Amino acid sequence: MPPLRRIRIELTYDGTDFHGWQVQPNLPTIQGTLEAIIESMEGVPVPVAGSGRTDAGVHALAQVAAFSIRNPIPVANLQRAMNRLLPPDIRVTRVEEVDPQFHPRFDAQAKTYEYRIFRAEIVPPFERRYVYHHPYPLLVHDMIATARLLEGEHDFTAFAAADDRDSAGASKVRRVFSSQLEELPDRLAYRVRGSGFLKHMVRNIVGVLLEVGKGNVGQADVLQRLETGSRIAVGPTAPARGLFLIGVEY
Amino acid sequence: MPPLRRIRIELTYDGTDFHGWQVQPNLPTIQGTLEAIIESMEGVPVPVAGSGRTDAGVHALAQVAAFSIRNPIPVANLQRAMNRLLPPDIRVTRVEEVDPQFHPRFDAQAKTYEYRIFRAEIVPPFERRYVYHHPYPLLVHDMIATARLLEGEHDFTAFAAADDRDSAGASKVRRVFSSQLEELPDRLAYRVRGSGFLKHMVRNIVGVLLEVGKGNVGQADVLQRLETGSRIAVGPTAPARGLFLIGVEY
Repeated sequence: MPPLRRIRIELTYDGTDFHGWQVQPNLPTIQGTLEAIIESMEGVPVPVAGSGRTDAGVHALAQVAAFSIRNPIPVANLQRAMNRLLPPDIRVTRVEEVDPQFHPRFDAQAKTYEYRIFRAEIVPPFERRYVYHHPYPLLVHDMIATARLLEGEHDFTAFAAADDRDSAGASKVRRVFSSQLEELPDRLAYRVRGSGFLKHMVRNIVGVLLEVGKGNVGQADVLQRLETGSRIAVGPTAPARGLFLIGVEY
Repeated sequence: MPPLRRIRIELTYDGTDFHGWQVQPNLPTIQGTLEAIIESMEGVPVPVAGSGRTDAGVHALAQVAAFSIRNPIPVANLQRAMNRLLPPDIRVTRVEEVDPQFHPRFDAQAKTYEYRIFRAEIVPPFERRYVYHHPYPLLVHDMIATARLLEGEHDFTAFAAADDRDSAGASKVRRVFSSQLEELPDRLAYRVRGSGFLKHMVRNIVGVLLEVGKGNVGQADVLQRLETGSRIAVGPTAPARGLFLIGVEY
């Protein structure tokens, strides 16, 4: 039997028509779609590990995943074969053979996400799957200042998913290396790079920034929650369609 | 009864999930979708005229249409109401009240289309609905030169839809004001502006340009068909997904 090879892939996907990354019975997911086509090539089930789960509807420019196969196919051919078998809303942009111990989640050093808010009255149909539409006035300068407050190491409990917020257990402390909101014509782009993210954390940060933009929440409220590790959320979860996983660093 | 008002609208749409412009029983079409929501506002059926039909899967940046209603709603409110009722893949970008005689098809002086060919090996998932993927070598300079040959008044019978090519009847002579292929990073954009277009004409022109790019057809072949009004097609019809109606001039 040929030896097991550890394969690292980078992939980009339009998450609109998937129920997120993680395998779910009878629902299309990114992980499930990858596992099905790799099994069809390898002849046996092959688990695929990702750098982390993306929620239903969230997109990726460069997600990282890995799996182990015995098939001796050269990596360039493997990439072409995968893209032939995958639906066009998932594309493998890079394939390489790596150390057998490589794990895309445990070895990740940093991740970057971007959230796109579209502000003009009419969303072009060609962008509708990739932005959150918010055509109302916003205090953008307050949002920009608040975004910077999240940089550094904080207890992000107030920004965790509701079903995760009250759990004891794992630490909710994360390090955010940069957190910046940029104002562009007709849109806002929020980009955040951190050591790791809690479930719904980026969408909840954007929800808070929007509340700040509406004047409903002050910078002091946000800072206090970060400093005290408050469990009280400050805003709603922004919709998945505006969120992109931009990249993972190792 | 309030007087009839002639309403001119501009609209943009992602044609991917529609069976073209024209009403068809039990199939989603742009015209059918517009007529349904206008009927829901007006209380009676209202025919909607377009500047021309777009095929199934063809997109529009600025299609023009018109209809007549008695509803006295201000045009700004009408635009908002239509966008609330329409699916997000169709957006009304402009509404105005015009002369009762205005007809978007008969009054059109020129139309512009663009066709997008994506040449790199991997189509980003976010563009897959809006380009034709052709990741193979092409003689781009020959294609650029051939595109210019189409400018002027010609008999475009060889570029008509197959089911229309042998019909006697209406003239197949059209005037093309400009016809240019532009080479961009990873892609080609073909833009054509003319007095009017035959069914499938732009997609057939692109099919011919691709045959020229592959070295299967020479410029002399194309010129001869234009000069003689030949009924013999020179290439296949390029897929609808790459085609955009860019604008209509009056």
